[in-house]
Amino acid sequence: MSSWGQQIKLSVFGESHGPAIGVVLDGLPAGERISREELSAQMLRRAPGRDKTATPRSEKDEPRILSGMLGDKTTGTPLCAVIENTNTRSGDYGNLLTVPRPGHGDFTGFVRYGGHNDIRGGGHFSGRLTAPLVFAGAVCRQILAARGICIGAHIASVGPVQDSRFVPEEIPEELLRRLSQSSFALIDPAVEAPMRSLIEECRLSQDSVGGVVECAVTGMPAGVGSPMFDGVENRLASLLFGIPAVKGVEFGEGFGAAAMRGSEHNDAFCMKEGKVATVTNRHGGILGGITSGMPIVFRVAVKPTPSISRPQQSVDLTTGEETTLSIHGRHDPCIVPRAVPVVEACAAIALLDLLLSSGQPLPRTDPE
Amino acid sequence: MSSWGQQIKLSVFGESHGPAIGVVLDGLPAGERISREELSAQMLRRAPGRDKTATPRSEKDEPRILSGMLGDKTTGTPLCAVIENTNTRSGDYGNLLTVPRPGHGDFTGFVRYGGHNDIRGGGHFSGRLTAPLVFAGAVCRQILAARGICIGAHIASVGPVQDSRFVPEEIPEELLRRLSQSSFALIDPAVEAPMRSLIEECRLSQDSVGGVVECAVTGMPAGVGSPMFDGVENRLASLLFGIPAVKGVEFGEGFGAAAMRGSEHNDAFCMKEGKVATVTNRHGGILGGITSGMPIVFRVAVKPTPSISRPQQSVDLTTGEETTLSIHGRHDPCIVPRAVPVVEACAAIALLDLLLSSGQPLPRTDPE
Amino acid sequence: MSSWGQQIKLSVFGESHGPAIGVVLDGLPAGERISREELSAQMLRRAPGRDKTATPRSEKDEPRILSGMLGDKTTGTPLCAVIENTNTRSGDYGNLLTVPRPGHGDFTGFVRYGGHNDIRGGGHFSGRLTAPLVFAGAVCRQILAARGICIGAHIASVGPVQDSRFVPEEIPEELLRRLSQSSFALIDPAVEAPMRSLIEECRLSQDSVGGVVECAVTGMPAGVGSPMFDGVENRLASLLFGIPAVKGVEFGEGFGAAAMRGSEHNDAFCMKEGKVATVTNRHGGILGGITSGMPIVFRVAVKPTPSISRPQQSVDLTTGEETTLSIHGRHDPCIVPRAVPVVEACAAIALLDLLLSSGQPLPRTDPE
Amino acid sequence: MSSWGQQIKLSVFGESHGPAIGVVLDGLPAGERISREELSAQMLRRAPGRDKTATPRSEKDEPRILSGMLGDKTTGTPLCAVIENTNTRSGDYGNLLTVPRPGHGDFTGFVRYGGHNDIRGGGHFSGRLTAPLVFAGAVCRQILAARGICIGAHIASVGPVQDSRFVPEEIPEELLRRLSQSSFALIDPAVEAPMRSLIEECRLSQDSVGGVVECAVTGMPAGVGSPMFDGVENRLASLLFGIPAVKGVEFGEGFGAAAMRGSEHNDAFCMKEGKVATVTNRHGGILGGITSGMPIVFRVAVKPTPSISRPQQSVDLTTGEETTLSIHGRHDPCIVPRAVPVVEACAAIALLDLLLSSGQPLPRTDPE
Repeated sequence: MSSWGQQIKLSVFGESHGPAIGVVLDGLPAGERISREELSAQMLRRAPGRDKTATPRSEKDEPRILSGMLGDKTTGTPLCAVIENTNTRSGDYGNLLTVPRPGHGDFTGFVRYGGHNDIRGGGHFSGRLTAPLVFAGAVCRQILAARGICIGAHIASVGPVQDSRFVPEEIPEELLRRLSQSSFALIDPAVEAPMRSLIEECRLSQDSVGGVVECAVTGMPAGVGSPMFDGVENRLASLLFGIPAVKGVEFGEGFGAAAMRGSEHNDAFCMKEGKVATVTNRHGGILGGITSGMPIVFRVAVKPTPSISRPQQSVDLTTGEETTLSIHGRHDPCIVPRAVPVVEACAAIALLDLLLSSGQPLPRTDPE
Repeated sequence: MSSWGQQIKLSVFGESHGPAIGVVLDGLPAGERISREELSAQMLRRAPGRDKTATPRSEKDEPRILSGMLGDKTTGTPLCAVIENTNTRSGDYGNLLTVPRPGHGDFTGFVRYGGHNDIRGGGHFSGRLTAPLVFAGAVCRQILAARGICIGAHIASVGPVQDSRFVPEEIPEELLRRLSQSSFALIDPAVEAPMRSLIEECRLSQDSVGGVVECAVTGMPAGVGSPMFDGVENRLASLLFGIPAVKGVEFGEGFGAAAMRGSEHNDAFCMKEGKVATVTNRHGGILGGITSGMPIVFRVAVKPTPSISRPQQSVDLTTGEETTLSIHGRHDPCIVPRAVPVVEACAAIALLDLLLSSGQPLPRTDPE
Repeated sequence: MSSWGQQIKLSVFGESHGPAIGVVLDGLPAGERISREELSAQMLRRAPGRDKTATPRSEKDEPRILSGMLGDKTTGTPLCAVIENTNTRSGDYGNLLTVPRPGHGDFTGFVRYGGHNDIRGGGHFSGRLTAPLVFAGAVCRQILAARGICIGAHIASVGPVQDSRFVPEEIPEELLRRLSQSSFALIDPAVEAPMRSLIEECRLSQDSVGGVVECAVTGMPAGVGSPMFDGVENRLASLLFGIPAVKGVEFGEGFGAAAMRGSEHNDAFCMKEGKVATVTNRHGGILGGITSGMPIVFRVAVKPTPSISRPQQSVDLTTGEETTLSIHGRHDPCIVPRAVPVVEACAAIALLDLLLSSGQPLPRTDPE
Repeated sequence: MSSWGQQIKLSVFGESHGPAIGVVLDGLPAGERISREELSAQMLRRAPGRDKTATPRSEKDEPRILSGMLGDKTTGTPLCAVIENTNTRSGDYGNLLTVPRPGHGDFTGFVRYGGHNDIRGGGHFSGRLTAPLVFAGAVCRQILAARGICIGAHIASVGPVQDSRFVPEEIPEELLRRLSQSSFALIDPAVEAPMRSLIEECRLSQDSVGGVVECAVTGMPAGVGSPMFDGVENRLASLLFGIPAVKGVEFGEGFGAAAMRGSEHNDAFCMKEGKVATVTNRHGGILGGITSGMPIVFRVAVKPTPSISRPQQSVDLTTGEETTLSIHGRHDPCIVPRAVPVVEACAAIALLDLLLSSGQPLPRTDPE
């Protein structure tokens, strides 16, 4: 199912080479001001062809809002946005219909849908389906921003090249704001050159490379989320694993915590500006599934783009014979930079849903 | 919410020091034979006090089945099991009511429930609530086993001490069966001694230590799961993050994939015994959210037990003053061994739910 | 599935002749004071054997609360209550296992569960399963009452004998309070004698009779519910049809509206005590699926008890031959009086769920 | 929420006077052949202006399928269809923004959405939103038809004028097929003239009139649905009450059963063509929430169109003063004829969802 959520119901539709893709967002609060410029800005960050490290396709990705907005405000009824597919060259994918690409969902989708799904360009499994996700996130993040909740992510690593990490106790809003407007988001700008070199090297060698996205959220009130299955970690993970190529999600110290002692890992409580806080933030802002009021910090592992131009071994599903496959489409050698806004979008959607489910009122902090 | 699932609805209830804990499993197929011995065996693996590395409490954890079974078979209507709380010494937790324990859900639960939740022994947040999960998993795994689906997990690491890893392409059922009956599950028995030493050392130094659980599932048919939000990874993660202390979940190569090239990571397709398979299994049995027919492999990061006897800094929630907290309860210095059956249980529940949602028939493979 | 709800998750379990029946209520607000006396009072209204018109069985129906309460307040975590089955004489139902009772779910349950469900006494389909529903409703109605929301229902008719109807524009709280404490709830006490005579006549002639329950709710704020599928009518109906024997649900004028003109049926808006109201209330307090602030009024059709002692034609499912069935159990000739508290309970559960989903704050109106 | 379903997720979006309306259907089986002619035929039945009794607006209501179809077959991924709004004259509704129309959702929507919803033409509450429902139903009914499941409804009454009723034991497929292609569906053609006269009389007197739609489904296998809250009646009702103007739903004898004795109402079981059946069908094909294999029969009460041209009393929401409202838009004096295909559509959607949830295989009965 491509549907998600409790108070907010998200429904993503479309195939890479079909007429259009889009999203329905049901359950948004009414009367929220949504800037179309900010929507476009987020769409642009994810769009391909914006950056020399990305694929040269120039999809316009201009969403048309069909419902749920009156002027610049949400109506509270379902918001639907549609993005037409204009720049599709199906010929590139001709032999994929019978020979599944290694590392892609071609084969599993073929079994799941009995061969009836549209696998041109990945069909519904395509990374292009993250465009409606970014749109939905761009709506939700504006509603959160009006409550002082700020989201930003960066390229924590590409292959072995690492950016600085967030200092989880103290994440300045300005940093998150800068990251959330960048198309190659890094905490340490000096890392950009070596990262781009590595990506370019992969492109030249007809290869690809994976990486990690780290995301932080400040301003979330304490007490949001529920124990067991509706915790912040459960809900966020259930959405984040919907991003193609994501193979791991960790919160706070994450897998690093597995190597620590309790005396190292526990975050002592203290009073800060009259509120309960923690001295350190190894818990990543979530304890028992519930927000602590400290910044939320999580990381997402992105596998290397499976579409590489080198010949690869596969199987012809029609004959059952092993064969060699060469992919000639246009592909990013590294999708991690473009995954950054998608991860932020998922954070925005999940946190707004959790906030609305919490029964806490949604007071506005902006002047309006 | 402590409710989960689509075709199967799981509802876990209870507080550590209340009258009883338990679980309702709605949506099970009817007529499935369930061995009570196998249920008890799984409960025993998780139960405390079974092993010198674990807490000395001897809870009996004997589930009483109230509904949903007639003789030794499921009726198809909701199955409810209740476990009485017998061995609770609330006195141990006296000062916790106002001073939250670092690393626990005491503080966040206090905010979430306005101070009304029962935090004696962790209340609904207690690790004890994994007992009903293990029970539910022990029911589901028997239904899966009758279809040739086998689940096993092991202690991949405790602190820096590592077990061998699964060879993901080739996981023998016998290994999984052995692991799923062990109370200190390891692939390489030689690792047991150093692991136990480390845990004992933590106990003596009033400290605790984290670790990683690795789980594998064989026999899942290809084509189960859906793209985007109802993929195997999404559903499994949404359940696994419900286990207290879990801070990370990864599939296949997981975070390791982030450092790889596409040419290293992609799994070539091949024919094996007349079926499409992959030569390697870095994808962990899941592509595009859907099972490939290869073994499913995932890892779960468990943080160190937050309950340690050393004095820790905290805050008195009634006075708003910083204070020092000493915990005198009985606590496992390492819960990773006991987390193994819980992780397996989550896998069983999630995969049965996914299988029933897939629309694929559920043919039995056992003689009956 | 025997699970229901969005913000509140209700899970009912048990079989009539199994060890116990019960309910889990997840998602309740924390810190709500719940009077056990009021719980018992509601359980008693539904319990059999309290009234000469009802079956002579004397089930105690004493719920044991296993979780979710601390002292007399909700904790906010799942509340589970269990009712032991004590007075069951399975022998009465011996031949039902192979010969389905006309009008019951025996046959359809047999097909649905492949013959594996427990059909002694109706099993999970038994009217006894309304006891946990009444318990759950008795919890929810106390939470609503603390906000000034009052629920009451009455026996609108038994066969051709009719009680007065609510005057939907003006329903006094005192009336609802009186009805909600009565075990044979009538607006017009003069109707009791002829109704009881009719029921007694049915008993003597080994027959049964149906009726209508009418329910009203006052004090619901305007603006609760959503258009299309999460309207008050949708949610209430989806719960009310879970009461065995309910075959129809109508709101406001209901089926009567089908025979009216728009000029007769439309309710004019007016100002009343500074608030928008309607002069008449043919819409039953719901317009476009959303509460208008006027009293909610609905009716529920209850079919005659299918268990009658007269010989009836049925089929032996083991031989496929037609046969005659005689039922010798103890049965109410009319379950309508005991259905009244069940209908009220469903109203309480559905309206609390809708209120919590509405995002409106839940201010208390009682002194506390 | 405008989202519905379990195995099938339905999401309806749009406002009457916004850019477009539409629907997403997630969870459809893959490889199902869908005839666009049949889709158009159903859309045409509901479309206004097709019949002299209906409003003269000539909306084209031509759905554009954006995803989920490849050629003439479903892909199994979400199917989205969009219908542009072309013929909207917002001027007609000018004063509605502040003065709510009696009998409409204007006022309740205003409170629910804080005045931010688009109420031009009813906005998201408009009867126009049934067009996407009919589209979705037209997809689902073709999938059901390929399994021998046939759906048809008729105008059971308009005001006091009544059509014949179904003979519930014996409903010929040919009758259902004829009804499901008619734009003024009646069992007895002789009733058409007096019904049309009555409707015309209402139009001339600036009034409107309500009615009842009766629907039947043949070919449903026994054993579909679940006891308590996921029964056929619960699920169908939760969808049917989403149709604007529906105020009552009853199954089988429905409210008539309330006046009957058990000995009259119980349906005796018998053997018919080697299968268990019932001699009569007062239960309307559903016992204990589960299909019995007999035809499903239910009725829906439709209130008179609230939009009438006569001056009506209302309130100016901006000033809080009572005022008189005159509506000058184009309105059907009776929407019952156009509600017939909407009721059929809801039946198709709910029954396909139930069938897919039942775990029963979906064998095709057509030659393909």
